[in-house]
Formats: sequence, structure tokens, C-alpha cells
Amino acid sequence: MDETDDAAHGRRPGEIAIDLPATTDAGVHFIGRIRTPWADRDACPKNPAGSDAACTIELDARYEAGLADLDTCTYVIVLYWMDRAPRNLVVQTPRSHGRPRGVFALRSPARPNPIALSVARLERIEGKQVVVRGLDCVDGTPLLDLKPYFPSIDSRPDARVGWRETAESDDCGNS
Amino acid sequence: MDETDDAAHGRRPGEIAIDLPATTDAGVHFIGRIRTPWADRDACPKNPAGSDAACTIELDARYEAGLADLDTCTYVIVLYWMDRAPRNLVVQTPRSHGRPRGVFALRSPARPNPIALSVARLERIEGKQVVVRGLDCVDGTPLLDLKPYFPSIDSRPDARVGWRETAESDDCGNS
Repeated sequence: MDETDDAAHGRRPGEIAIDLPATTDAGVHFIGRIRTPWADRDACPKNPAGSDAACTIELDARYEAGLADLDTCTYVIVLYWMDRAPRNLVVQTPRSHGRPRGVFALRSPARPNPIALSVARLERIEGKQVVVRGLDCVDGTPLLDLKPYFPSIDSRPDARVGWRETAESDDCGNS
Repeated sequence: MDETDDAAHGRRPGEIAIDLPATTDAGVHFIGRIRTPWADRDACPKNPAGSDAACTIELDARYEAGLADLDTCTYVIVLYWMDRAPRNLVVQTPRSHGRPRGVFALRSPARPNPIALSVARLERIEGKQVVVRGLDCVDGTPLLDLKPYFPSIDSRPDARVGWRETAESDDCGNS
């Protein structure tokens, strides 16, 4: 474990990096790409609620039959791979918050498995293209999965994130 | 693509299997294990709302510092790896529903990237053990990630899943 501030790796004061295992345990397929208006991370909204722009999920042709019935859903859970972030920072200092916090209390793209999830509003499906609103990722981000959003198991309007209530910023610790 | 009913692989009428790419594009680390009361899939609840049993997420020691601040959250998003399911069925006939549907409209464990997500109620954190309620997976399931649940971006109580409204069963197409 290494608590030093490492400017060469963009590390900020208080952050903790670990040694990850030398090998991974399973492999993921990139099943498509997400087309968004944002060419790099600085251009992205702070979180999925920060933009209502239409984004197009381009599914690889081999998976297209899997879209059947999805058009009956109003919201879709999008899982994608944040391949530009370091994976070894277990404690991080988000740009917009004053102090270091545990990675599992943050929605940062930098995490041991850089799998992001966004709940997006489904606009329409055209062949293997799925048009949604409510994403905040960089153009070209690899897609991992789409799932139907069931309010009975996925919606918890009363949930609280205590650390956020006393923080200065309105993001989710993802920057 | 192969539309035949293949009893040898447990395939049901109407299901469609594809050839997956020969290689994967990125690797995941199993960062812990989920301890639940259910030894095999038949014993599991039909979906996360089907049980209120306490389950213990045992994080590997190297990631423990990442739990800081998570105790201020009331709900946590749990991502895990469903390593016992086939990955090539893009159209599936859930056990409890009469007809085949696209995998991306189902919460089936059988999907190109077998990443499941559950929204669980956080009970307490003891060292590297996280006790939650609201999981439905098999004992020993590999953990991929924990995330704080933010109602502003994650809760959509008005979401609808059209195909489910006319189906006979109350599950989420996960069986």
C-alpha cells in the first residue's frame, strides 16, 4: 500500500493505491459501443442527470436478436467499461470534494473493476441501435450489457448517501 | 446462429444461441465472495425482492480501505459474476414465462457478460464484511463491485416493463 501523493500518476493527497492481483479471474466481451456528444472526459456531464442529450448505443450485429422485447421498457440499465481509468485506487479524493473517500462509496470510474452503470431513458430502437437519454460517458465507450429496469427491485427513492449530504458539490464523487 | 432446441445444453424451444467471439476484451478481478443461505440455484429466491435474508459480502483484504464512508449509505448496488450460466443465449425462454424473449429485456443470469446487479439494503459493515439484505444469488458468488445508491440518478419509480405486464409470472425473467 502506498499513501504518497504521486503526481506522475495524477494521484491526489490522501489517496491510497494497492497492488492488484497479477491475473484477472474472468473475461468480458465488449458487445458494442456507446456514441455520445462528448469526445473526452472533461467534456462529459458530471453525472447522468447532468444532460438530456440523446446517445446511441450501437450493438454488435451478432447480439441484435437479444434486443427483442426491450422496446416495451421505458428505462434501461446500461453497463459499460471505463477503460481509461486506473484500477488500483481504493481511496480517492474526488476533484469536487475536499477529502479522500473509499472507492466503494464513490461512483468514480477508477475502481478495481471499471464497470459503470447508468439508468437511461429508452427513446427508440432502430435495428441494432438503441437511442437513450441520460448517459454521461465518453464517445466510443465499450458496452457490456443492457438490462430492463424494474422499479420493484431497482427503485429506492428513499435511499440516502450520508457523506454526500455534508459535501459541497452536487456530483456523485465521479470526478 | 442456431435455433434448434438443444436438450443437451438445456436449451428450450425458441431459444437462439450465437457464436461468441473467440477472445474476451478485458478482464475482471473477483474482489470477494457473497455468502448467502442458498447453496444452489433452485434454492434461490426468484428475485432480490423475494427474500429479506441477511447476506454477508466478504471483501478480499486488499480492498478493505475502499469501504470507508460506505457506512453512511442506506442502499448499495452490488455487482457480481454469475459464473454458472451459459453466455451465448441471445433469445431465451424463461422457465416461468410462456415465450422466448431477448436477453437484454430479461434479468437472466445467462447473458454475454454475466454481470448481475442487485440493490441491497445496507445493514452494517464489520471490518471487511458488509452485511446486506435483498440479494438472491448462490452462496459463494464472486463479487465485482459495490457502489453507493443515489436516488437522484438510480431511482425511477415510474419505469415500466411492458412485456412483464402481460406475462403470467411475477418474476423478472431471471429463471
